[in-house]
Amino acid sequence: MSQKHLIVEPPLGLRASRGARAARRPRRSRVVDRQLLALVQASLGRAPVRVELWDGWSPYRGTADPVATVTFLGRGSLLRVLWNPDLWFGEGYMAGDLLVDGDLVAALEAIYANAAPQSLPRRARRRAWRLGNTLPRSRHNVHHHYDLGNDFYALWLDRELVYTCAYFPEEACSLETAQRAKMDYVCRKLRLRPGERVVEAGCGWGALARHMARHYGVTVTAYNLSREQIQYARARAAREGLAGRVQFVEDDYRAIGGVFDAFVSVGMLEHVGRAHYRTLGGLVRRSLEPGRGRALLHFIGRTSPRPLNAWIRRRIFPGGYPPSLGEVTSLLTEPWDLTVLDVENLRRHYAWTLRHWLARFDAARDQVARRFDERFARAWHLYLAGSVAAFTTGSMQLYQIVLSRDRDNTLPATRADVYRQWTPEGLDDDG
Amino acid sequence: MSQKHLIVEPPLGLRASRGARAARRPRRSRVVDRQLLALVQASLGRAPVRVELWDGWSPYRGTADPVATVTFLGRGSLLRVLWNPDLWFGEGYMAGDLLVDGDLVAALEAIYANAAPQSLPRRARRRAWRLGNTLPRSRHNVHHHYDLGNDFYALWLDRELVYTCAYFPEEACSLETAQRAKMDYVCRKLRLRPGERVVEAGCGWGALARHMARHYGVTVTAYNLSREQIQYARARAAREGLAGRVQFVEDDYRAIGGVFDAFVSVGMLEHVGRAHYRTLGGLVRRSLEPGRGRALLHFIGRTSPRPLNAWIRRRIFPGGYPPSLGEVTSLLTEPWDLTVLDVENLRRHYAWTLRHWLARFDAARDQVARRFDERFARAWHLYLAGSVAAFTTGSMQLYQIVLSRDRDNTLPATRADVYRQWTPEGLDDDG
Repeated sequence: MSQKHLIVEPPLGLRASRGARAARRPRRSRVVDRQLLALVQASLGRAPVRVELWDGWSPYRGTADPVATVTFLGRGSLLRVLWNPDLWFGEGYMAGDLLVDGDLVAALEAIYANAAPQSLPRRARRRAWRLGNTLPRSRHNVHHHYDLGNDFYALWLDRELVYTCAYFPEEACSLETAQRAKMDYVCRKLRLRPGERVVEAGCGWGALARHMARHYGVTVTAYNLSREQIQYARARAAREGLAGRVQFVEDDYRAIGGVFDAFVSVGMLEHVGRAHYRTLGGLVRRSLEPGRGRALLHFIGRTSPRPLNAWIRRRIFPGGYPPSLGEVTSLLTEPWDLTVLDVENLRRHYAWTLRHWLARFDAARDQVARRFDERFARAWHLYLAGSVAAFTTGSMQLYQIVLSRDRDNTLPATRADVYRQWTPEGLDDDG
Repeated sequence: MSQKHLIVEPPLGLRASRGARAARRPRRSRVVDRQLLALVQASLGRAPVRVELWDGWSPYRGTADPVATVTFLGRGSLLRVLWNPDLWFGEGYMAGDLLVDGDLVAALEAIYANAAPQSLPRRARRRAWRLGNTLPRSRHNVHHHYDLGNDFYALWLDRELVYTCAYFPEEACSLETAQRAKMDYVCRKLRLRPGERVVEAGCGWGALARHMARHYGVTVTAYNLSREQIQYARARAAREGLAGRVQFVEDDYRAIGGVFDAFVSVGMLEHVGRAHYRTLGGLVRRSLEPGRGRALLHFIGRTSPRPLNAWIRRRIFPGGYPPSLGEVTSLLTEPWDLTVLDVENLRRHYAWTLRHWLARFDAARDQVARRFDERFARAWHLYLAGSVAAFTTGSMQLYQIVLSRDRDNTLPATRADVYRQWTPEGLDDDG
């Protein structure tokens, strides 16, 4: 059934030329292949994406020039994509069973924008939600994604290694500036004051912890399950003379103990799993100083509850689940009477962040393919391109929410101070 | 059982002097009265509020000087307050069965701050939630509160008659400035552009509708069930030459038809009832231009779902229910895939607004009592004082949420523009 074993790996990855593709045409397509492909084309609605078979046959009748052509190299991948496009488009792309010629981001944007709201069977949804990230599973999940090697991430992240949505005061900002602006924005929203104690859950390579300690005079205890990241974070903090003010702990968020003035978590909630939101909310409450404790959670979310794309869950973020705002409030904040002070949707900032990452990743693609392999490079290209599309089209959101443990009548009563006399463009100079 | 029929109405309302009270003491208290009162005192925890019986006996042992003394004038009110304090403290205060000497706001703040989170029986909660505000019931509820006469509200609201939380760029702002700043803030958050069409659900006396039309060049269709308010709004818009740009419709939000660039509702959601959030969400979606429609909902809310105080529901806001953010998102926005762009908690601004209202109300108290009666004046004094306390202590929140119908990549991507070059202090001069 599968043609993929006949296929020579295209030498340039995805962008195989027409000539190269022609050389690999094993045989002419049959009526059944064309009928199947017509179904695929129909499922794309009016998206200007052309699909074709291995011999060049295409049912595309769009009046617009297609932004990309997807070539199916065998009936197997065609059937699998029809069966479960969420999973098998990614699998086929990764395996080289289908090729994309043209602008992958634009193609995915068009497909997302055309898609009707997902309506998965109830059972599938429930299953996705129930997925509990126990501690051993969390360790596995974190290792899968974050222990790919610091060198790998250094190829395409900013120089502070911040692997979460940046904040672009202007769209034209550099990624470096936007990541520093994001860290500063988080500190400003939390209204950090010198001498305060901050706990960070899921600290990545420690950039935010170091930023808070250096620029806001706070002490930080930062948790992360990824050994590689923690080792990097410790070494860098020591090198920068911050070791006394930032403590990195290689452990799960559930191990957090002590009482702090602020709790911050940037890009972790997506990995926690719905079943643990209540526990996390209790941890936030317990970790905060009564009366004046504040928290900031920054996470990928949705406009309404739905499971993460199956391919992303399988290949990129096992255990990942971006929640809706209603899930976070009803499961995490409300059972503990945490007060929501502020919610901001930074969706478009993530699309811009991802465009920077994708461009840098593509520039370093050969290195990635040499270090891992072509499949890996294709998977990550698709993941980054698909994420640009998801945030551009609103299939994904990025929420920052600020909470207080109790009522605190000493905090600024408006947001104006966050934006006043703040020139994050100048941030490049001060560190 | 009840002593209240023996009690002469205190001539000065609540602040009866000790002498006046002594004159009305019907008899000495008994052991059972003192035991009951000790239970009341115990229920207040460490709040510095002294309770006493009609003959002056008090179990108060606080070390601090009490901020107020509550005098029970009979065993009946004592029993009723013990039975259901939420309802009967207000009933007793209104009827003159119990008197408060001292700072009522401070007393209620202390009581709220001491109270454990409410833990009503499940059944009572469910009942409160289920309360459906059908159209006839909504008419009744609106009439009960909002048709008390424009003159009544003019006694203590600002000169634009805005009966919702103001926005204080500085705490020291006048109420007039803060209400104008709020209206402007709403327009800025909605990013209104000249020529756009706005629909307003629950428009009060029309101040916001007129502000939007005058300062932002939009046309407004504004709905309200209150005949008195609509008549006032129409007359004032005509007098100010805005009749061509603002249309006031005496009807329920459910009657809204047509498609608009923006949907705005300030202070209505509290009266809608949980059972109708889904309908309202659908109405928001249906009323908004695909692709670029925005909405702003401004409402009193809670950190977690709980029923409105029973006395407020009986006497002030029949059918009222301030929702939690989780209820609004899961019931109103998520079923329709509306995108939450922004949420702001303006709790303290409502405490300040209410302090202004209370001071103006108290200054006009004699007029109120002459026009209605003492009971009415006491009830409204308690309602305003209790509301100050509720917002100061965080028992109530005030949320403004901004939504978009679909993804709109043309809106400003940061909030900085909302705060840039905005001097709402200067607003006093421009209208």
